[in-house]
This record gives sequence, C-alpha cells and structure tokens, in this order.
Amino acid sequence: MSGLFITFEGPDGAGKSTQLRLLANHLDSLGIAYITTREPGGTPISDKIRALLLDPENSAMAPKTEAFLYAASRAQHVEEVIRPALARGKVVLCDRYIDASIAYQAVGLGLSPKMIRRWSEEATDGLWPVRTFLIDIPPDQGLTRIQSRGGPDRIEGRDLSYHSRVRETFLALASQEPNRFVVLDGTKTIQEIADQVRHEMQTLLNLGNSEKNATVRGGKSD
Amino acid sequence: MSGLFITFEGPDGAGKSTQLRLLANHLDSLGIAYITTREPGGTPISDKIRALLLDPENSAMAPKTEAFLYAASRAQHVEEVIRPALARGKVVLCDRYIDASIAYQAVGLGLSPKMIRRWSEEATDGLWPVRTFLIDIPPDQGLTRIQSRGGPDRIEGRDLSYHSRVRETFLALASQEPNRFVVLDGTKTIQEIADQVRHEMQTLLNLGNSEKNATVRGGKSD
Repeated sequence: MSGLFITFEGPDGAGKSTQLRLLANHLDSLGIAYITTREPGGTPISDKIRALLLDPENSAMAPKTEAFLYAASRAQHVEEVIRPALARGKVVLCDRYIDASIAYQAVGLGLSPKMIRRWSEEATDGLWPVRTFLIDIPPDQGLTRIQSRGGPDRIEGRDLSYHSRVRETFLALASQEPNRFVVLDGTKTIQEIADQVRHEMQTLLNLGNSEKNATVRGGKSD
Repeated sequence: MSGLFITFEGPDGAGKSTQLRLLANHLDSLGIAYITTREPGGTPISDKIRALLLDPENSAMAPKTEAFLYAASRAQHVEEVIRPALARGKVVLCDRYIDASIAYQAVGLGLSPKMIRRWSEEATDGLWPVRTFLIDIPPDQGLTRIQSRGGPDRIEGRDLSYHSRVRETFLALASQEPNRFVVLDGTKTIQEIADQVRHEMQTLLNLGNSEKNATVRGGKSD
C-alpha cells in the first residue's frame, strides 16, 4: 500500500466537498496522481445504495438498516476503488468515511458506537485514512447553507439536535486521535481553509515514505 | 411475544415457497391468524434492497457487500413486520432467514460464519424462529427446477459447487439444532411433504404456551 488515503469530514454544509475539490486542483498543479471519491457511493453498486439511503421517501428506514447500508456501500467502495487506487500509489481524497458512520449512525441514531465502528472495520478489513480533515461548523450555519442549495436529503433533513450530536461526535473523535485529525474552522473563508489544507498536505507529502500512508486496525473477521 | 415464528429454508428449487403457501392455506382452514413473508424483502425498503441483491447486473458485488445488504434488509423486516406480527399473537411464516445467510453468504462466499451470524443477531436483536422447516434436495435437482421456471437470479445463477456448499451448510446447521429444525426430503411429492409440515405444525400448536414461541439469543449491541 503506497498511496495516501485522506478523508474529509464535518457537519453537512461545512464545505468539505469544496475543500476536497480545491485540494484536488492543487495536486493537479503539483502533478501528483490522485482520485476523488465520496461516501456513500463511489461505485455503481454503492451509488444504488446511496440512492436508497438519501431518498426522503424512505422515511421508515430503521437505524440499523441505515447503518448496515452504509457498511455495505463502504465494503464495495474499499474493495473496488480505494484499495486498488492506493495499491497504484495514488492519493485518495474521500468525502466522508468511517468517522461519519460513528457520528451520524451511532451517536446520531442511538446505536452502539463500538458496534458501528466494528462493522466498518469488518467492511474495510480495518483500512483507516492517514489524515482526516475535519471542517467544523456550528450545525445551524451548516444547515442554512444546505437550505440555500436546494433542500435537504433524508439525513440532512434531520433536526438540529441530531446535527449537534453529529458535530460533538466529530470533535470527540478528533480529540481521541490528534495525529490523524486536522480540525479546521469552517467559518473561515474558503481560501483560508484551503491554505491550511494545502499546508498540511505538503507536510504529509514531505514525510514521504517515512510514515505509513494508510493504517490498518481492527477488522478481524470473527 | 406470543406468536409463533416459523421459517422455511433449503436449496433453491427445493419447494419452500410452495410448502409455505400450503401451510398458510391449512392455517386459514383452522382459523389461525398468520402472515406470510420472505427474505430478502418483506417491507418496501427491504424490497428495494432485494432488487439490488438479485439483479444479475450487479455482478461486481463484493461478498461482504452482499452480506451487509442481507443484514440491512433483515433489520428492517424484523422491526417493521415480524416483531409487530408476533406481538399481535400471529403465526409468522417466513421464506428464508438467518440460516440462509450463513449458508449462502458465509460458507457459500468464504466469509466467517461466526461474523455473519453475529451481524444477523445484531440486526434482529437475536430473534430466532421456534421451528425451521428445512426442505432438502440435491442442488442439481433444485437448479433444474429453477431453470424450468424462467432463468436464475444473481444468486441462483452461481455454480453447482456453490450450491453444494449451501446444501451441506443447511444440513450441518440442522444437525447442530435438532430441536429447532425439521428436515424434510424435497424429492418426495408435494403432498407427502405438506402432510409432514402439517403434522409438525399441529404438534407445535398443541404445545401452545407450554413452550417459548420465539427465541432470543446473542444480539448484544457491543
């Protein structure tokens, strides 16, 4: 595994996708091979699962059903896209990953965080990113941005207390793993945040092969 | 939980669905309240997951993706249909359940049976049927029947060695739990098998409340 696996996390509307795209442009300018991808989704099968997950019509979905669907989508995504790209030495920029399941499905919906983390580790054989950019923003500000771009999906449409639990969980995860997480203030300007992301990325590229570029933890099969 | 939870299992083409329907007719004639249902499926959301699972177009599906989708479908089915029906005192006749995941996804695809069992117990909070009718048939005979009714779905279309592993797993599960399983010879006539099913059902109904009518095992949340 010689590529670099990097994820972007944060409350909805924090600006993850924008920052991911700006970092991709930066890698382009440096001539560094990369892919961009997202969860749920990233493969044809995972995109079909994404459609089930986000369709506001599926309002009867049970919390465990939702969590298993994320795990299903992730298993496919890692096997079909992320691991092959890392094996070819590419940088993988992924919009959401396991941390999001712990925040949105476990803490957000009242399921066991330990169980949700285990399902994801079993889904991915324990593949974790080497860096996670957490763009933090108060949930009311994030939801205002979501509204302005055309109405929420099934999960974005949950109430403010849900999104507050999601945010607090992201911050708690970041404090548990300060070496993996880079916490960014999503209320700053796009350019300010992008500068910080590029700076961290440069540090990571300079480290080169002196550090492991993706980590494997947990994921035992039984 | 006062209903009776009963499942039908067996290789594809064994005649499960026919026997389930005949037992339903018999319960009708006795005036006993029941529902019939099936996996994957049984709810609108689970039926959408079923469509993903069985569509031959999704040939790139990873084994773990398949197993997580079954767990997702099952979590929804148990919460939305099976537990409510049992709580209303109904007999629930279900075409396939956890045993099928152990046979088709774990042993059939080379995943850990212990892990697949755990996912299903977590999906269902450990709800197991009180009786499982296993209709056994040599897989080549079952597949011949499938062919004659219009072509296999994505899982039926797997090779004979796969279906042989599935059959052997069902028989092994039955030998591990002889009190739950009733093994029936699927090469007998439909009427002979139906008579045996009715006889076992009568015994179960006579037991009445002297026995637990569904069992809960495992399913711990972390």
